Amino acid sequence: MPGFDDAALSQDAFLGGQVQLLQPIQGYRAGVDPVLLAAAVPARPGDRVLELGCGGGPGLLCLAARVPDLDLTGVELQADYADLARRNAALNSVDMTVVEADLAALPADLRQQQFDQVIANPPYYRAGAHSPAQDVGRQIALGGATELSVWFDTAARRLCHKGYLHMIQRADRLPEMLEACLGRLGSLEVLPLAARVGRRAELVLLRARKGGRAGFKLHAPMILHDGEAHLYDAESYRPVIRAALRNGCALPWPR
Amino acid sequence: MPGFDDAALSQDAFLGGQVQLLQPIQGYRAGVDPVLLAAAVPARPGDRVLELGCGGGPGLLCLAARVPDLDLTGVELQADYADLARRNAALNSVDMTVVEADLAALPADLRQQQFDQVIANPPYYRAGAHSPAQDVGRQIALGGATELSVWFDTAARRLCHKGYLHMIQRADRLPEMLEACLGRLGSLEVLPLAARVGRRAELVLLRARKGGRAGFKLHAPMILHDGEAHLYDAESYRPVIRAALRNGCALPWPR
Repeated sequence: MPGFDDAALSQDAFLGGQVQLLQPIQGYRAGVDPVLLAAAVPARPGDRVLELGCGGGPGLLCLAARVPDLDLTGVELQADYADLARRNAALNSVDMTVVEADLAALPADLRQQQFDQVIANPPYYRAGAHSPAQDVGRQIALGGATELSVWFDTAARRLCHKGYLHMIQRADRLPEMLEACLGRLGSLEVLPLAARVGRRAELVLLRARKGGRAGFKLHAPMILHDGEAHLYDAESYRPVIRAALRNGCALPWPR
Repeated sequence: MPGFDDAALSQDAFLGGQVQLLQPIQGYRAGVDPVLLAAAVPARPGDRVLELGCGGGPGLLCLAARVPDLDLTGVELQADYADLARRNAALNSVDMTVVEADLAALPADLRQQQFDQVIANPPYYRAGAHSPAQDVGRQIALGGATELSVWFDTAARRLCHKGYLHMIQRADRLPEMLEACLGRLGSLEVLPLAARVGRRAELVLLRARKGGRAGFKLHAPMILHDGEAHLYDAESYRPVIRAALRNGCALPWPR
């Protein structure tokens, strides 16, 4: 029987308490990244949404808190985290299908479905390319053995015509991401996320559209924090970021 | 005998008069782009520098005005512009070799040379993808028939180990540019050039290194103009940009 012991879990509030999330005390714990990912998705009520590598479910549950009546499916490789995502869906009274599967080999019934929105927050490091984590689950969540191109291939296959992929990923993997989109997805837009004004972006949000034909857009960076440095012990998120993180508002995507 | 009639040319000052450039009154005329390109190149005295598609020579001549004792070679497809580049080199008392050739088929003696720096400001549009210009030379300079990948391939072949390529290009061609670098050049850095703060970058400067192994860097945009809009009829370039354009200073490349 997979699953974390209750004693190994903490319950954490997201979106100012709109979402409650059980997370392993040791292991992969969601930061602001899946919350910003969910905030960037222009989903409409009724949309079918698929998250690749949903972990314990923070991305889908934050999206569900903002947009009603979504048809939610999460795919997760690790049984412990898939189980956790199901528990978190129940905890938040959200109807969500969680499929324990490898992205590279989705089960047949999922391969017959199409989605309006695909979201993904893939591991930030290549397997073996970073210092091993103490915890195996965290290790897999941080350093995936699945090539980024497989994430894009699976996303492109599961998207309906004109459906959107949104991905959050390290900025230094942008060349890989853009390469993986070629021939699969179009209308690419990159929104760099920079900690402070003038700083290089560490993360990017990528928006891509199946069948999209618009030119590539490199947007002005979205700055997360006010000021040029962290000066005192208070939260310094800029208002639009705070609104997304604390109130569950949509992130204003630039034109 | 190729070449423009004198009556078809204007003489224009660049870098506050440090560089004088004969340019066709009708035809392709250099803007700030080759000047910013030259300003971004960390060339040192003695470096061998190759410009692919040098046109009338603004990029190489601006670079020569800042860095002494460079060994300069320009390749230009169009005979009229190659001739103009030779005249402009003489006009500025700069020793520069100009080779009239197709990038895809460089002459044998050039194919035996290696360079410390390659620079390029390729046509911004694909052939046939934009409204035809009145002037054939301008047409070729704006909408090249040579694929961007050929520019990168030629650059990579001509660079010495650890040599740099700098390219200025439209931001919407970034996916093509990054794809063309894969397997050829490393340590990629993108410096977006945005007209104003908060605006999307229309142009990017790309720096790549032969044999480079550093991670990809997406830098914070370099903002060209002060203020949020063009309010009055005065020059609004930010000081570092004005220093590059008017005084021939190096562009401060972010770390």
